[in-house]
Amino acid sequence: MELSEIYAPVQGDLDKIEDCLKSVCKVDFPHLAKLLDYSLRSVGKRIRPILTLLSGKSYDYNLERLLPMATAVEILHTATLVHDDAVDKSSVRRGRATVNSLWGEEQAILLGDYLFAEAGSLTASTGNLRTIKLFSETLKIISWGEISQALNAYNVKLKREEYFDRMAKKTAALFVLSTESGAVLSGAPEPCVQLLNEYSYNLGLAFQVVDDILDYVGTEKELGKPAGADLMQGTFTLPAMLLRERYPQEPAVKDLFKNKDSQADIKKVIEVVRNSPDITDECYRIANDFCAKACRNLNQLPDKPARKSLLELADYVVRRKK
Amino acid sequence: MELSEIYAPVQGDLDKIEDCLKSVCKVDFPHLAKLLDYSLRSVGKRIRPILTLLSGKSYDYNLERLLPMATAVEILHTATLVHDDAVDKSSVRRGRATVNSLWGEEQAILLGDYLFAEAGSLTASTGNLRTIKLFSETLKIISWGEISQALNAYNVKLKREEYFDRMAKKTAALFVLSTESGAVLSGAPEPCVQLLNEYSYNLGLAFQVVDDILDYVGTEKELGKPAGADLMQGTFTLPAMLLRERYPQEPAVKDLFKNKDSQADIKKVIEVVRNSPDITDECYRIANDFCAKACRNLNQLPDKPARKSLLELADYVVRRKK
Repeated sequence: MELSEIYAPVQGDLDKIEDCLKSVCKVDFPHLAKLLDYSLRSVGKRIRPILTLLSGKSYDYNLERLLPMATAVEILHTATLVHDDAVDKSSVRRGRATVNSLWGEEQAILLGDYLFAEAGSLTASTGNLRTIKLFSETLKIISWGEISQALNAYNVKLKREEYFDRMAKKTAALFVLSTESGAVLSGAPEPCVQLLNEYSYNLGLAFQVVDDILDYVGTEKELGKPAGADLMQGTFTLPAMLLRERYPQEPAVKDLFKNKDSQADIKKVIEVVRNSPDITDECYRIANDFCAKACRNLNQLPDKPARKSLLELADYVVRRKK
Repeated sequence: MELSEIYAPVQGDLDKIEDCLKSVCKVDFPHLAKLLDYSLRSVGKRIRPILTLLSGKSYDYNLERLLPMATAVEILHTATLVHDDAVDKSSVRRGRATVNSLWGEEQAILLGDYLFAEAGSLTASTGNLRTIKLFSETLKIISWGEISQALNAYNVKLKREEYFDRMAKKTAALFVLSTESGAVLSGAPEPCVQLLNEYSYNLGLAFQVVDDILDYVGTEKELGKPAGADLMQGTFTLPAMLLRERYPQEPAVKDLFKNKDSQADIKKVIEVVRNSPDITDECYRIANDFCAKACRNLNQLPDKPARKSLLELADYVVRRKK
């Protein structure tokens, strides 16, 4: 099933998010307008704003309240990507040149700051203090996760619990902001807010595990960036972790990062993972487990079309090739 | 008069801001705790949190409400400095190595993000929507100003109004957030909020003009960083602007930035400014004009000790050597 089918119950409203993003780009400073347009109007999957909308569907769904928040989570996500790319000195994302590669690292840092502020501003416009507080806490958690990841670059001894903790901070936290804000702004009862958060937290973990698998097994065309980018940047993720656990004597693993600049050593590890179905199967099993956890209590949600979309989204997150 | 004397009416509460900053550094991640401690506990002038406290003094001064906000403006200021230094690749600030020079640009970007979020979180904890909205809008304005400054690097044709507009965005906006939040959180009547904002806006402009003068005429010891840093980074400020207006035929001016890497050309401009009292006098006249504007309506404020401190602070801002 394609994303467009999954998104069907809120497609009209998703279009309005695109209009909001377009409005954000309209600033009286042509250079900034260009940067905003370039970064916000690229074709992401828009999963986070969709989570905000779908979370509100079962309750007092009020588009006027949800729209700024759904736009905010997408902009916050974009801001983190812009800074990520600057930190990693990445040149390509989603098949397009990154902001830092086109306008320099300085502009990428400052554009990211502007985007954080814009996301904060839209969140503030909801007038909902719980959501506003969660927004800032989420950005703290994401930054914490990113600092920890940068600190652990080239650390092949990273433990599984550290890896999952990092994913929870880097990815799942923003998924939780997306559902919690949507549910709270729609007056969902607290148990339902928590149920949606359990969904999004585990969906976020599944999403990140799959991202980490695809970085090994995907093609450059599918990924929109070169495969193996994580390892090239010294980021040790689940596939390499499992390889090291299962085949500690494998030379490619033993040599990894001994010479940080050795592309050959890194390519070898990627090759070994690609040719080890037991590794990729195990990664997918873990991702599927998170998805099962995500969905286990969704039947308690009242709205049927939205619930169906959330279930399908979980399925999509594991199935996707990009 | 020393800052400590000016700060006297709120000195006890300023100490509590230091305690708040100390609490912010207590996180369960030793590396991050170290970065926070290093960046937040350096000895800045703490002008912005003082503005927040002094703005509340004439009204319903409630330290519990003001403390998180005063801490937030100082943290927001620190975040912008951390990113500024990363953008400019500066190695020294306030006589100490910068975060980017000690831990790398990546960590500086991510630490700045964390600090923005922490400042947002403290602001959100005030529960005051007007202040929360102003916080995000201010960060947007600051980023806008920084993007504009980076875009205009090496632009010797920068116009005065563009220079002042950039200063309003880069510096005065945060001064305004500091007073407006203090006044609003203390229930000041709207005309008094506006009066304090008129003060802080012009104080911010005066502060930045003096910063820009000191960058030419100060010593490395006083500045805590090498003199001439602005020009080295291609930032064209008031002294060079006046030099160009008054002595367009001066060779040092005509050659400026023709060869961006020519330290000799840059040093020559700095020397000419240092030896042109008519230039520095004119810059100080402009700074004093902003200060006069800042103070012209302060007599309408009820609280005498706080009003006295604000007047003395304006005087200090122009007199200071660092």
